[in-house]
Amino acid sequence: MLTIKRLDSDDARALIAGAAAKAREIGVPMCIAITDEGGNLVAFERMDGGKVTSITIAIDKSYTASAAKKATHEYGAASQPGKPAYGIGSAIGGRLMVVPGGLPVVVDGEVVGGIGVSSGTPDQDMEVAQGGLDAFAAG
Amino acid sequence: MLTIKRLDSDDARALIAGAAAKAREIGVPMCIAITDEGGNLVAFERMDGGKVTSITIAIDKSYTASAAKKATHEYGAASQPGKPAYGIGSAIGGRLMVVPGGLPVVVDGEVVGGIGVSSGTPDQDMEVAQGGLDAFAAG
Amino acid sequence: MLTIKRLDSDDARALIAGAAAKAREIGVPMCIAITDEGGNLVAFERMDGGKVTSITIAIDKSYTASAAKKATHEYGAASQPGKPAYGIGSAIGGRLMVVPGGLPVVVDGEVVGGIGVSSGTPDQDMEVAQGGLDAFAAG
Amino acid sequence: MLTIKRLDSDDARALIAGAAAKAREIGVPMCIAITDEGGNLVAFERMDGGKVTSITIAIDKSYTASAAKKATHEYGAASQPGKPAYGIGSAIGGRLMVVPGGLPVVVDGEVVGGIGVSSGTPDQDMEVAQGGLDAFAAG
Repeated sequence: MLTIKRLDSDDARALIAGAAAKAREIGVPMCIAITDEGGNLVAFERMDGGKVTSITIAIDKSYTASAAKKATHEYGAASQPGKPAYGIGSAIGGRLMVVPGGLPVVVDGEVVGGIGVSSGTPDQDMEVAQGGLDAFAAG
Repeated sequence: MLTIKRLDSDDARALIAGAAAKAREIGVPMCIAITDEGGNLVAFERMDGGKVTSITIAIDKSYTASAAKKATHEYGAASQPGKPAYGIGSAIGGRLMVVPGGLPVVVDGEVVGGIGVSSGTPDQDMEVAQGGLDAFAAG
Repeated sequence: MLTIKRLDSDDARALIAGAAAKAREIGVPMCIAITDEGGNLVAFERMDGGKVTSITIAIDKSYTASAAKKATHEYGAASQPGKPAYGIGSAIGGRLMVVPGGLPVVVDGEVVGGIGVSSGTPDQDMEVAQGGLDAFAAG
Repeated sequence: MLTIKRLDSDDARALIAGAAAKAREIGVPMCIAITDEGGNLVAFERMDGGKVTSITIAIDKSYTASAAKKATHEYGAASQPGKPAYGIGSAIGGRLMVVPGGLPVVVDGEVVGGIGVSSGTPDQDMEVAQGGLDAFAAG
């Protein structure tokens, strides 16, 4: 039998609040998604002005980061032409995201969930996702 | 050119808060989804204990209620065997929900979004969705 | 080798114009889709106020009527519980529509395309689709 | 509550007419799709000779341009191997189009919809989409 650590809905809210604060700081309205360690959605927010396409992209970045236990930008590096994971980005009906902005949420060395952010540049998305993690760790 | 009224992310949070309060009152943790008037997701929360299957069901109930401008239980009644809309429940890849728990959000006679709730019985889902609308109207 | 008769884009426009005129007459803004005899979309119009869910439903009604060479309401009757085609409504990922509002376009005894209408009641959808056929036949 | 500007069905027809005129000028029959600012289809035309594969491609180019508020060719540039958005083209089940031919429709600085064109070379698709915007702006 396994015992699993998993973020709860309060944790999810704290992650979104931290990310949204960073998004407002840099002036880019974002879609922000939180998934649990099984890749299943716990919470989502589209800030006013966040992109409609980014709804699915944010959810899938978070899904990838939590369920694969890897930041999406690491997949981006590993899936360049000629690299070992080339082509992984179209896996799972395109849900496996290789664009920056998806980060695992790690507690005591275990992945307990993920955060996915979309609507800005890849750098902005990653910065805002990190903002969520930082606020959560500080909280 | 058309001018459209659409709920914003504060409205979405108020709807979720109202629904979650009702869910706690009846003791059933729920998935709660809010879409805008175009059927696109604005906010989502899975309360601790909400069902994983209900993630998509809540989102699709909200999508149906907002984008078809009709409560999902009305489709349930209209799509019984022998009724005119029989079979509508498998439309749009199964996204057209005919199970109770999806309600349009109406402001000044216009549909500005939708709320979808899932994890309980159909009656509980509908009661919690209505709880969201009531809190929003009172707010 | 086969020689196929297929409606062209002028025909599609005439069908939409006829259906839209009927929709205005009965006061229900509609989504109207025209497919060719292969089930492929030729033209589509969402009138102002037509439902977002009805985009796909209108296209799939037209797809069904043209590609199956059968009105969607005939599938509705044939797929009731206990009837031979029971369950057909979830075929093709739910694209096989059994709700009224999809009619084949027939010229000289051959199906050359289809019209699909959605946003009203099933009766209204069928009436508006028939309005398209009537205007096309008269044109 | 938000107040949104959205193109209406007359606007959509004007955009299609302008694009079709340009398509005839360069002698390439096209699929032309118009979406609203939420990414939902408003109008579509496949000119006689337009490609069947281009039905979905034109719709998805328009979806991307409107819902992501960005021309699809910009995504093409940003998603080349080694670039920050590498891999974005398989997102949303492949609906996120990075091939030229999708342009946002902007009125008074706001994205009110999108136009997507497909069947020619990428340059031709983009030229015809721009033809739609030019005719709409002149109209």
